[in-house]
Amino acid sequence: MVNELQSDYQFSHKNIFGIEQLSVQDIEHVLATANTFKEISSRKIKKVPTLRGKTIINLFFEPSTRTRLSFEIAGKRMSADTFNISASTSSTTKGESLVDTAKNLEAMNPDAIILRHSCSGAPQLLAKHINAAVLNAGDGTHEHPSQGLLDMMTVVEHKGKLKGLKIAIVGDITHSRVAMSDIIGFSKMGAQVFLAGPRTFIPPHIEKLGAIVCSTIQEAIEGADVVMALRIQHERQNDSLIPSLREYAKFYGISNQLLRLAKDDAIVMHPGPINRGVEMNPDVADGTRSVILDQVTNGVAVRMALLYLVIGGGNNDDGHGEG
Amino acid sequence: MVNELQSDYQFSHKNIFGIEQLSVQDIEHVLATANTFKEISSRKIKKVPTLRGKTIINLFFEPSTRTRLSFEIAGKRMSADTFNISASTSSTTKGESLVDTAKNLEAMNPDAIILRHSCSGAPQLLAKHINAAVLNAGDGTHEHPSQGLLDMMTVVEHKGKLKGLKIAIVGDITHSRVAMSDIIGFSKMGAQVFLAGPRTFIPPHIEKLGAIVCSTIQEAIEGADVVMALRIQHERQNDSLIPSLREYAKFYGISNQLLRLAKDDAIVMHPGPINRGVEMNPDVADGTRSVILDQVTNGVAVRMALLYLVIGGGNNDDGHGEG
Amino acid sequence: MVNELQSDYQFSHKNIFGIEQLSVQDIEHVLATANTFKEISSRKIKKVPTLRGKTIINLFFEPSTRTRLSFEIAGKRMSADTFNISASTSSTTKGESLVDTAKNLEAMNPDAIILRHSCSGAPQLLAKHINAAVLNAGDGTHEHPSQGLLDMMTVVEHKGKLKGLKIAIVGDITHSRVAMSDIIGFSKMGAQVFLAGPRTFIPPHIEKLGAIVCSTIQEAIEGADVVMALRIQHERQNDSLIPSLREYAKFYGISNQLLRLAKDDAIVMHPGPINRGVEMNPDVADGTRSVILDQVTNGVAVRMALLYLVIGGGNNDDGHGEG
Repeated sequence: MVNELQSDYQFSHKNIFGIEQLSVQDIEHVLATANTFKEISSRKIKKVPTLRGKTIINLFFEPSTRTRLSFEIAGKRMSADTFNISASTSSTTKGESLVDTAKNLEAMNPDAIILRHSCSGAPQLLAKHINAAVLNAGDGTHEHPSQGLLDMMTVVEHKGKLKGLKIAIVGDITHSRVAMSDIIGFSKMGAQVFLAGPRTFIPPHIEKLGAIVCSTIQEAIEGADVVMALRIQHERQNDSLIPSLREYAKFYGISNQLLRLAKDDAIVMHPGPINRGVEMNPDVADGTRSVILDQVTNGVAVRMALLYLVIGGGNNDDGHGEG
Repeated sequence: MVNELQSDYQFSHKNIFGIEQLSVQDIEHVLATANTFKEISSRKIKKVPTLRGKTIINLFFEPSTRTRLSFEIAGKRMSADTFNISASTSSTTKGESLVDTAKNLEAMNPDAIILRHSCSGAPQLLAKHINAAVLNAGDGTHEHPSQGLLDMMTVVEHKGKLKGLKIAIVGDITHSRVAMSDIIGFSKMGAQVFLAGPRTFIPPHIEKLGAIVCSTIQEAIEGADVVMALRIQHERQNDSLIPSLREYAKFYGISNQLLRLAKDDAIVMHPGPINRGVEMNPDVADGTRSVILDQVTNGVAVRMALLYLVIGGGNNDDGHGEG
Repeated sequence: MVNELQSDYQFSHKNIFGIEQLSVQDIEHVLATANTFKEISSRKIKKVPTLRGKTIINLFFEPSTRTRLSFEIAGKRMSADTFNISASTSSTTKGESLVDTAKNLEAMNPDAIILRHSCSGAPQLLAKHINAAVLNAGDGTHEHPSQGLLDMMTVVEHKGKLKGLKIAIVGDITHSRVAMSDIIGFSKMGAQVFLAGPRTFIPPHIEKLGAIVCSTIQEAIEGADVVMALRIQHERQNDSLIPSLREYAKFYGISNQLLRLAKDDAIVMHPGPINRGVEMNPDVADGTRSVILDQVTNGVAVRMALLYLVIGGGNNDDGHGEG
């Protein structure tokens, strides 16, 4: 799928705000780079000197274990110095604005800031005021580009391609920045995304991004190559949007029965953490079709690739030698 | 005490759940290994390359400063990459189960997970679902094996042996995983453990582990080589189990007067943090017989040894050269 | 300004409690050392081996993002192993005293402990019980020496000297350990400090430190080389000391109009984080006279210098080679 020999190509993005900004070639290049980095995490000595002496700050205004940890592992496996700032301990409790925080961090000469924030657009605002690279680790309901890229990487790994695939995404599209990044990314790469969920979970005009809204979940899953369930975001939405978790599970929970409608070799995905028995039956989540843990593994590889491309690219070093 | 030349011996444990699983030879081997690592922490450059490129995750579901820090220092002094996850910031606040957390961490290719959890048996559950080594840093009221080992190391340092010693353990045995690890460990190594405390603090059938329950604290301390006071665990128990801290201190607080019953060269221990004036008089805690801070120092050495044995053992490197 | 060739001079402080303890020559030496370290943070590979194998613990009993991060960056850029302990997760929630915490940390062989504490004098108490170097990162209303030093470094950078300058410090002197360190430091170096603020914010007898208390802010700013506004410490004081933030801003907020009274080339400083529109108008904070972000940048350099001087000085290594 990836043609690295187009010698005039160069990844030219300093910041990663969203999949929206990336071209097809950019995405192919990130995935190819992630593939070469993936092997490092299975080595006995999981460390390369690629980003030695680089300063990477995880600036998280929303709680996160796995995304923060994934970026931190990615950074340290490339020998960067990583630093964690979480909202609860940050100066924002002293009333400091994001822009002031940005300028102050910038004054300490970081190379990259990884930002998670509840406001859509926060990474762009940050980037306007600093020289360090900004990587969006989830902003409001906007995008979560590293998740979108790891999802694409996982599908390519299992299907060998993205073009022409049918991707069903089920659940709370409205509140999911993962869904946004996936819809934009898969569509861009030539796959067709089908959406299903309670009406209150389907944002108006979402078709403009290239997705097809289905009136039933069966329609979305039928013949799908990929079935992705989204997390019910208790923490980011009004629970009154759905009558009850039990009813949601009954109609939209991914079961083996529903999966019979998909292609025989369909794979099942979830961005995690799973509400078992709600978005997905446990036997599906742990079943042979599930590639959920591959997504997590690829997350580290994709984040290593992104960090390498935005802050390590210029060092004329392939970055894969042993550290 | 340790005979390293039994050439057919190999430390064969992938996980450290408790002292219970360790043979006499295993314990001797851990203590001998800890002894060789101890010197590193007194070097000017406290760093060896033994675990370079290894990923160690501290997964703490209960608050802890010293055990977490001790493991983190142990890891970093051997050049491992260490990561901290504490319950309050973890996905468990999003309703993720321990098993899902385990699988997700595993997918990021860690080498070891150090777990503290309020449920007894949690480390075994974790280990069932992952390939990484699991080290129990305290599970419910079950065990705290690295504490048991550092206690044994400290006694050997001061007494030259464990066999035949009289060890008095005073206080809240019922709620103490430290007591469990110590009773099992000291008994296994041929010492005799005597227990004393208010009746509500002595678990039924504890004699089956080889300990002798005394009816008075004087009986426990008389002729003892080691007097260990346990912490009153305000945070893990119903305070109604004892009439008052004042009364507890009066009857069970270790004083110099009580210590006159012990051997002349008896040492005093406490797993910390001490409630001064409750479990122990300050003049005892800070007195010449106290080896409490040796326990802390040996904790780093024992944890270096455990990490080395479970994740560094196969690298044909003695691990003691300068990094 | 700095004469490094006085060959008999040696920086002899093991602990950094305050500017008070430092001689003029000490301060000159710290600033000169910081100047040589500053360049490291603008390198592509921001890492030198100076403190490799050293253990530095950030022990913060008050929330802090920037000071903690600044010290952590300083440590890691010199290859030290850094560890963070914050009050909320510390054993002090289990009732452990500062002295016990100190002794326990000491038993793990740290090289330096960086302490922030709400009690004035806490660093001295800590230092009495440990061998590790203690660096005060802010104690009660006493001192914040690394801030004082970075302020002096910033002024020297812009003014070429300290001697003979007029320094206006405006705001809440009473509750500001920054003000204390600045008054002591600037006065010691031959500058003249003028103070202005509401009467409730001016501590009695402050003139004894060499500062001049002005009855109006205009008097303080007139002809000043440096205008420094202090933060209104909502979190550390009774808000009833000033009628309202609005009124405070009206009379004491630094505006371009007020700045016309200062020298033409006067610089504007603030220890951050700024309450914009309260202590300072946004157009001043972001204006050409503001050196606020230089303060932050110099903070990393000063902290590298302090750490180097107290724990790295003896290794006969200039510490500036590439790591």
